[in-house]
Amino acid sequence: MSDFNLGLVGVGKIVRDQHLPAIAATPNCQLIATADPYASLPDLPAYQDLEAMLDAHPEITTVSICTPTHLRYSQARAALMRGKHVLLEKPPGATLSEVEDLIACAEKQGVSLFAAWHSRFAPGVANAQQWLAERKVQRVEIVWKEDVRVWHPGQAWIWEPGGMGVFDPGINALSIATAILPQPFFLQQARLLVPSNAQTPIAAELSFTDPEGAAIEADFDFRQSGPPTWDMHIDSDGSRLSLTQGGCRLMIDDELIIDAEEREYQGLYARFAELIANGRSEVDVAPLRQVADAFLYGHRETTDAFIE
Amino acid sequence: MSDFNLGLVGVGKIVRDQHLPAIAATPNCQLIATADPYASLPDLPAYQDLEAMLDAHPEITTVSICTPTHLRYSQARAALMRGKHVLLEKPPGATLSEVEDLIACAEKQGVSLFAAWHSRFAPGVANAQQWLAERKVQRVEIVWKEDVRVWHPGQAWIWEPGGMGVFDPGINALSIATAILPQPFFLQQARLLVPSNAQTPIAAELSFTDPEGAAIEADFDFRQSGPPTWDMHIDSDGSRLSLTQGGCRLMIDDELIIDAEEREYQGLYARFAELIANGRSEVDVAPLRQVADAFLYGHRETTDAFIE
Repeated sequence: MSDFNLGLVGVGKIVRDQHLPAIAATPNCQLIATADPYASLPDLPAYQDLEAMLDAHPEITTVSICTPTHLRYSQARAALMRGKHVLLEKPPGATLSEVEDLIACAEKQGVSLFAAWHSRFAPGVANAQQWLAERKVQRVEIVWKEDVRVWHPGQAWIWEPGGMGVFDPGINALSIATAILPQPFFLQQARLLVPSNAQTPIAAELSFTDPEGAAIEADFDFRQSGPPTWDMHIDSDGSRLSLTQGGCRLMIDDELIIDAEEREYQGLYARFAELIANGRSEVDVAPLRQVADAFLYGHRETTDAFIE
Repeated sequence: MSDFNLGLVGVGKIVRDQHLPAIAATPNCQLIATADPYASLPDLPAYQDLEAMLDAHPEITTVSICTPTHLRYSQARAALMRGKHVLLEKPPGATLSEVEDLIACAEKQGVSLFAAWHSRFAPGVANAQQWLAERKVQRVEIVWKEDVRVWHPGQAWIWEPGGMGVFDPGINALSIATAILPQPFFLQQARLLVPSNAQTPIAAELSFTDPEGAAIEADFDFRQSGPPTWDMHIDSDGSRLSLTQGGCRLMIDDELIIDAEEREYQGLYARFAELIANGRSEVDVAPLRQVADAFLYGHRETTDAFIE
């Protein structure tokens, strides 16, 4: 695996909690500097913005973009245009169309673009995908519920356009489902519950199907109290696969296959390093497309105002 | 151009007004039968559904799908699976994800799939595209306004999820803009005005940009009284291109280049015949993706109830 020198754009909670330990555990990845107008990291050169960071450190070959969604496009494009490899935090953009442009830009520049879906690196996902690859699915039940006050304290942006509301965690479920189900699937009906003082849903009930008529139901809810539920159950030819605890635990027909600690971001940086080494990009827009479809085709109902 | 035998699925207003005359004017296209549970055409075999039509007429090689949007996917897939070429009326699906599956299905079956955007066949569009191909665009102003009571009388579906509201005509403007502008563009901000008794917007103000920072503004409104406005003005390097009357009239710097009658569907069927003859598909999802982006990222405001 070739070495790479990394710059971080945006130094928020996800960077401190997830990116830093994963970068430290990635062989041959050197963290060089950060770009953020409001935050920095101890003992690391810090710049106001991406351009200043890249000007000061021409040795940076690679950037991870962890800023709020609506800022990512212009930063990612600037980095790509300067010949840098780019990792985009999830979701890869505020709109699908801007992501399409980044894909074209990376291809033209001959650099690696990686749309990171961290949940796809949960311990049980690869096995689930493998087990399902040759099977026919009859029924899928996805339950993704968490307490927004616990998991997104003070994150007012989540209720604004682009914040996606309950689809911010829900897209993690969709990123797993689009990876492990053997057929593509698409929305048939959706009910979006939107607080009277918000732009985005606090809960969503979604019915999908696939080309073979599977019944795929998803229930997303931010109004959970107590521990989160991040589970999916898949019925296939008389067997049941259960991927629970956000993908940490995998059971097939009551046999425990995997029960491991979450190390998603380590897997994610390992994949990024592999993409760079092989000169490839990986940008699967399917999870974001599913969310856009739900906003396009879902039925909105107004519910109680959300007061944090 | 090889002959093709056509079956029509869905016999509504658009078929009578547009498809029939265009089919009659398409050399080597024979209309064989129709499939619609509620409507038929004089002197033509009529069936309740697509499967019955194809069972009775194995000589049909090609179908045009003109049913309501939410029915199109399963019909298109059934036709593709039976090895038929398929034309999809606009928009090509209720969701982007179902269209992706149809693209894969057509490829696998080795048949032609054509997502028809009729406005792209307006008289001035090809010249506009050619003129803009090598230019840098600074500013675009799109004004697409019509009286919903005149142009969509009694069409209650337009206010339901998937009906897209003012984006039903607006997507025509977007289908032209995505075809003629030399760079891809993407949404930066949108304001969607939704009647208190509707699911979809009656008006929308959209601000897009492109990788070079062009200012692209679109103003869609269903509350127009009097004649419709279907215009776009494009400023490029000191020149101004105006494509007005839905693309029938093209002016560049006050010189009238084209002023012709609308014959969009003839052009559309000619393109379909060409795709079939060359064993190719043409499915550009960009206009539908722009609409999905607007629903995903737009700011909704409630406005007066719509009473027809």
